[in-house]
Amino acid sequence: MAELSRESGIPIATIKFYQREGLLPPGELTSPNQARYGPAHLRRLALVRALINIGGLSVSGIRDVLAAMGEPDTAPHDILGVAQHGLPQAPPAAADDTARSWAAGRVAEVVAELGWRPPPGSPLVAALIETVCMYRALGHEWAVEALPVYAAAAQRIARADIDALAAAPSTEDLVEGAVVGTVLGDALMATLRRVAHAETSRERFGQLTSGGPADPPEPTVR
Amino acid sequence: MAELSRESGIPIATIKFYQREGLLPPGELTSPNQARYGPAHLRRLALVRALINIGGLSVSGIRDVLAAMGEPDTAPHDILGVAQHGLPQAPPAAADDTARSWAAGRVAEVVAELGWRPPPGSPLVAALIETVCMYRALGHEWAVEALPVYAAAAQRIARADIDALAAAPSTEDLVEGAVVGTVLGDALMATLRRVAHAETSRERFGQLTSGGPADPPEPTVR
Repeated sequence: MAELSRESGIPIATIKFYQREGLLPPGELTSPNQARYGPAHLRRLALVRALINIGGLSVSGIRDVLAAMGEPDTAPHDILGVAQHGLPQAPPAAADDTARSWAAGRVAEVVAELGWRPPPGSPLVAALIETVCMYRALGHEWAVEALPVYAAAAQRIARADIDALAAAPSTEDLVEGAVVGTVLGDALMATLRRVAHAETSRERFGQLTSGGPADPPEPTVR
Repeated sequence: MAELSRESGIPIATIKFYQREGLLPPGELTSPNQARYGPAHLRRLALVRALINIGGLSVSGIRDVLAAMGEPDTAPHDILGVAQHGLPQAPPAAADDTARSWAAGRVAEVVAELGWRPPPGSPLVAALIETVCMYRALGHEWAVEALPVYAAAAQRIARADIDALAAAPSTEDLVEGAVVGTVLGDALMATLRRVAHAETSRERFGQLTSGGPADPPEPTVR
């Protein structure tokens, strides 16, 4: 275990905690107080760390994801469902009925346009509606104009993800890849959006920084 | 203040904490122990909550973002920069030099393909390289195949975001919109990806769930 800790860079106490919580299988006992750990343990530890640090999953969320990954007859579709289920969601906005039905309308338009058929009562669609409500609660419903572009982009990304998944070298890779792709893909997309914002904003507003605005912005009311 | 608490749904103690931390300006004093709060306070409270709950920003991160929003001559481009700066980033992967230079190569390809010109030493590009390293550290470098599609999608989204921003009704809306759009856009995109994954995965792998796989997957090694 000291070697596993050194190779993974994770303290022994933490590794023991993961074992007690069922996130890491025990090593193969070679004597009453010696166990052997292999590459599968190192890989599992790396996955658990990524789910915690990048995915923000709780210990029980990770346990659910790992259990689904371990079931021999779980379809990739269902694994993705579990990976999604464990991920943190935006808390419900304090929205009134008017705001919520406006948001539901915008989301329904986009879903229809892309030909998506989410199951009735889908928690993902409910989460979308909540996020769209937040724009309005914050006084930025005009920003929801970009929603169809976001949805079309999500569609293209999902196709590329599933193409890459379908080419996974083994079923085990496919299943773990669905989890890793869900979590790391969020981080990747968030960072790429920031790079693209900086590029587009320099193109569009760049002259404001260099030459000074033609029409100076008013100070924000504090 | 009791009224502000009731309308915003935020406890008085929390509102006082935000004031002490400089996240909410004081009300207009109408008597030694009475202050008047207006719609600007309610809106600021909603923004602070969104930055904490959805953006995961720290109190000092929010203070930086609000300070940049309050500067009269800050270009939208720079506000976006500050909003980005305060946001949590993936921790550096435990990657060796080979892995990091492989990841840097993949990121450079994508940046060149889109004609992006990030500044030398860009922390966003460094964050991208770290995330690409994580795929490899987790044994899923094959999933990086989808990177160009992610980047092109980010480009389209950024253009739509900046178009919507440029149509903001006032400079104040534009500046706050940049912050809100950065934070809520992440949540929106993460949820849309999950919906799109479920749709695409049902199309592609749907028969596995209903009919049983032709080639049964092996159980995951635990």
